[in-house]
Amino acid sequence: MSSSGNIPFGSGLPLEMALEQWRAQVGRENVCLDPALLRAAETATFATSVTTPAIVRPGCRAELQQVLRIANAWRIPVYPVSGGCNWGYGSRVPSASGCVVLDLGRMNRILDFNEDLAYITVEPGVTQQQVYDYLRERKSRLWMDATGASPRSSLVGNTVERGFGHTPYGDHFSHVCGLEVVLPDGEAMETGFARFEGARTGPLHRWGVGAYLDGLFTQSNLGIVTRMSVWLMPAPAYFQAYFFTCDSEEGLGPIVEALRPLRLSGTLRSEVHIANDYKVLSGLQQYPWEEAEGRTPLPGEVMKRLREQLHFGAWNASGGLYGTRAQVAESRRLLRRALSGKVNKLEFLDEGKLRLADRFSGLYRVLTGWDLSRTLDLARPLFGLLQGVPTDQPLASAYWRKRTPPPAAMDPDLDGCGLLWCSPVAPATGAQAEELVALAGETMLRHGFEPAISLTMITERSLACIISITYDRQVAGEDEKALACYQELLRRLSGAGFPCYRMTSQSSANLPPSPGYDGVLRRIKRSLDPNQILAPGRYVAAE
Amino acid sequence: MSSSGNIPFGSGLPLEMALEQWRAQVGRENVCLDPALLRAAETATFATSVTTPAIVRPGCRAELQQVLRIANAWRIPVYPVSGGCNWGYGSRVPSASGCVVLDLGRMNRILDFNEDLAYITVEPGVTQQQVYDYLRERKSRLWMDATGASPRSSLVGNTVERGFGHTPYGDHFSHVCGLEVVLPDGEAMETGFARFEGARTGPLHRWGVGAYLDGLFTQSNLGIVTRMSVWLMPAPAYFQAYFFTCDSEEGLGPIVEALRPLRLSGTLRSEVHIANDYKVLSGLQQYPWEEAEGRTPLPGEVMKRLREQLHFGAWNASGGLYGTRAQVAESRRLLRRALSGKVNKLEFLDEGKLRLADRFSGLYRVLTGWDLSRTLDLARPLFGLLQGVPTDQPLASAYWRKRTPPPAAMDPDLDGCGLLWCSPVAPATGAQAEELVALAGETMLRHGFEPAISLTMITERSLACIISITYDRQVAGEDEKALACYQELLRRLSGAGFPCYRMTSQSSANLPPSPGYDGVLRRIKRSLDPNQILAPGRYVAAE
Repeated sequence: MSSSGNIPFGSGLPLEMALEQWRAQVGRENVCLDPALLRAAETATFATSVTTPAIVRPGCRAELQQVLRIANAWRIPVYPVSGGCNWGYGSRVPSASGCVVLDLGRMNRILDFNEDLAYITVEPGVTQQQVYDYLRERKSRLWMDATGASPRSSLVGNTVERGFGHTPYGDHFSHVCGLEVVLPDGEAMETGFARFEGARTGPLHRWGVGAYLDGLFTQSNLGIVTRMSVWLMPAPAYFQAYFFTCDSEEGLGPIVEALRPLRLSGTLRSEVHIANDYKVLSGLQQYPWEEAEGRTPLPGEVMKRLREQLHFGAWNASGGLYGTRAQVAESRRLLRRALSGKVNKLEFLDEGKLRLADRFSGLYRVLTGWDLSRTLDLARPLFGLLQGVPTDQPLASAYWRKRTPPPAAMDPDLDGCGLLWCSPVAPATGAQAEELVALAGETMLRHGFEPAISLTMITERSLACIISITYDRQVAGEDEKALACYQELLRRLSGAGFPCYRMTSQSSANLPPSPGYDGVLRRIKRSLDPNQILAPGRYVAAE
Repeated sequence: MSSSGNIPFGSGLPLEMALEQWRAQVGRENVCLDPALLRAAETATFATSVTTPAIVRPGCRAELQQVLRIANAWRIPVYPVSGGCNWGYGSRVPSASGCVVLDLGRMNRILDFNEDLAYITVEPGVTQQQVYDYLRERKSRLWMDATGASPRSSLVGNTVERGFGHTPYGDHFSHVCGLEVVLPDGEAMETGFARFEGARTGPLHRWGVGAYLDGLFTQSNLGIVTRMSVWLMPAPAYFQAYFFTCDSEEGLGPIVEALRPLRLSGTLRSEVHIANDYKVLSGLQQYPWEEAEGRTPLPGEVMKRLREQLHFGAWNASGGLYGTRAQVAESRRLLRRALSGKVNKLEFLDEGKLRLADRFSGLYRVLTGWDLSRTLDLARPLFGLLQGVPTDQPLASAYWRKRTPPPAAMDPDLDGCGLLWCSPVAPATGAQAEELVALAGETMLRHGFEPAISLTMITERSLACIISITYDRQVAGEDEKALACYQELLRRLSGAGFPCYRMTSQSSANLPPSPGYDGVLRRIKRSLDPNQILAPGRYVAAE
């Protein structure tokens, strides 16, 4: 099966030779040297210095295997991207200069689907929108989980970066199995029961038998996932979203303390998303240049005024309740009781109420005191995300500091949006959540950025905190300021015991050292990628 | 940190030299050559031919590291056991002859515990009973999950074998994180966020950042887990067990079809355990030698008669409902509705009802038609297991074919019990469950064993099927017959697409080949264990 013997060696520069052989394998049209496209692949939502000589687009696994064998023969490093929508974490920019981008977008087949057993099997180029459309066309009763990244983003790409969404299946890596992986040397393997020919449980059972290897191929540079079975969630009999706000900046701790028992007891089966005022405002509109009289960062008193005008809180949370009507009613009762006295507004929204609010938002406000008129635009996509409907609405917040509105076809990389995501994880206790937020807020304001922060109760015991450094790359000096802020956040947060769950493709060297683990990872890397051609440096701490 | 430089080399046989150095490290009393104890370590619940020259019992991680360095220096293979209670899968018998048994039982400290964040951190020698007692002493509101193996069995041992219990935390490997692992060469490492000094989320978040390596150290021979954080479940406001029976042997398919949607919707948050008549009978009593007139396997008509006499079904299931009273009531309603017309009896049991039944079992039968008098002895431990209370009651079924009753202190290995567990996994559909059961039943009866089978809805999509080959090792020829039956089961089940989730320590070579995966595993093994000293052959397919 494995053989690089059929790859002819010749004279010329290694890259030229590799390009020629790649063209023979994948077709000339799929080896791209177009300067504009290369520039695009070198452009993230923050400053990077990495350059890439080419983009290669294999159309199937066999082509990818050959592409890797050629890369090994000529020692050309490669960097795979599935959808390339890793915004805030480096987009499609490689981890090191000289890497050829392997664009897996053409490998976009849906390979298997089962309504009863509730799964779908996809290649890396399959997008959120594609799966959503596929399910709708079949009138499936199954829901996918979606991230707010973009309808164009890849399920495989997000999962191998261990991203998360909003439904009970939000922790993506917990809901996939049966991987097919192409190793750096071009060999292929399968994980779980999928590794056995004819096994029926490949897409159904995560561990299989023997060592569980799937985790090796997430947040790593050890292999390229070319197939993955993704579990889908049967639509519940009834769905209701909840939203609540808290006017007090000191309200976060009590809210986390109130919610943790509900997560632990299984009453809240999905993540709770808690956003501060800056985060909400950047979702509602662009920077209020006029109110701020041109100053940045946004002054606290302006923020307070806007909270009152636009009817949101210092803290604002959302989540979903899934089940029968009786199950949802009981969850609602428990949620109300837990939050009593700790929040200012707690509102439940279902399909009917949302339609009503759409039609009578003015009247609705009079009746309920809850202003949906302005927030409906934000609420509707979020309401959809809680049911796994992809949307690119959250992406608009990348344009926060821009002076012109987001275009219809948003491309944060090429539109000069500045966005860096720093994502520490904290224990799900009120005191530690507050400590993290205080530390992040102080750091960001000192660097001149609004501390737009969300905390997601991603598991029963931990909070994934997303700190957004959002700026305008076209303003001179901002790139440098943003990176300095990001580096200080990484350093201070991990120093305080809150390391990040995810790193940008350029910041792996900033991972704190852990000699035992790092040594094992390097040994495995050498055994699987002796020529170190796959995504050099990605998720590897500096030596 | 790593150095074998301080291990003096000398003359003499390698084993003798290693033993002398081990004695110096762990103390003479912890290097055991006692023939009786070595014979015990070579004895499982089925025939094995493996011999072991010694048992070494390190008392802490540092000692274990030194023990492994010495093993490497002299090339002595070692085989770690935590509690040694891997009954039905090889007990504590090593995977290959010549392995020194590393008994980790002395490493039995509870290292951390947190009531609010609901976890406990344990060493490998910590037993189920120990954790249970620890929680009770502290009047904790948290429940552990327990397997039916034995109160003496190790949490770490069961988890690294990917065992399962009965509560919503039943899939053990899904509920642990932050491992500390000693590698075959004596180096140590930590996984997840626990690898970073001072990180607060080590016991709380499974993935950490970068490649997720925990899975490498389950069902493998790549490292020894010396610390593990185990998540605990807050006791629900209310708990109710459910039991149901189905008199028809054809009832399994419809039951699985009825239950799958309830598992998928999250209404049933824990496993459903479905056992056939043979399995239930072996839990209730020993082999009915008299009724069977001495014949084996148990004739079908005798089985039918006993079902009627003892009031159990061809299929018998149990599970737990956890939540508030309203949540449990709604689950009960949904379960009743789903099973309507598919089962003969459906009974719900809570603490109060169980107490009542205890006192008035005769009257209770008259009132409800449900005979608890005989089954109460079985029901009570199961009722406890559904709440994570360890018990050794299920172990009694290992004495099924013995002519004398189980002793008070059961030791299936030394008592000559014959027990082999074959554990295929099937998709959770009625048709496939029936197909698996038919295949297993036909094979076992042909080999002269009762097909005692349970099917556990271990995840929303898959059934873990435990097929018990139970016999009396003191009857000549039975050992050989049992192994032949086991081998045929493995072969036929995996041929039909139902590979096992777990193998005995002697049967790894029977794993079907999967060239890609096997190659990767071997490459990793060579990189972490160049001298191949750790558990040679364990969970590795034959080359």
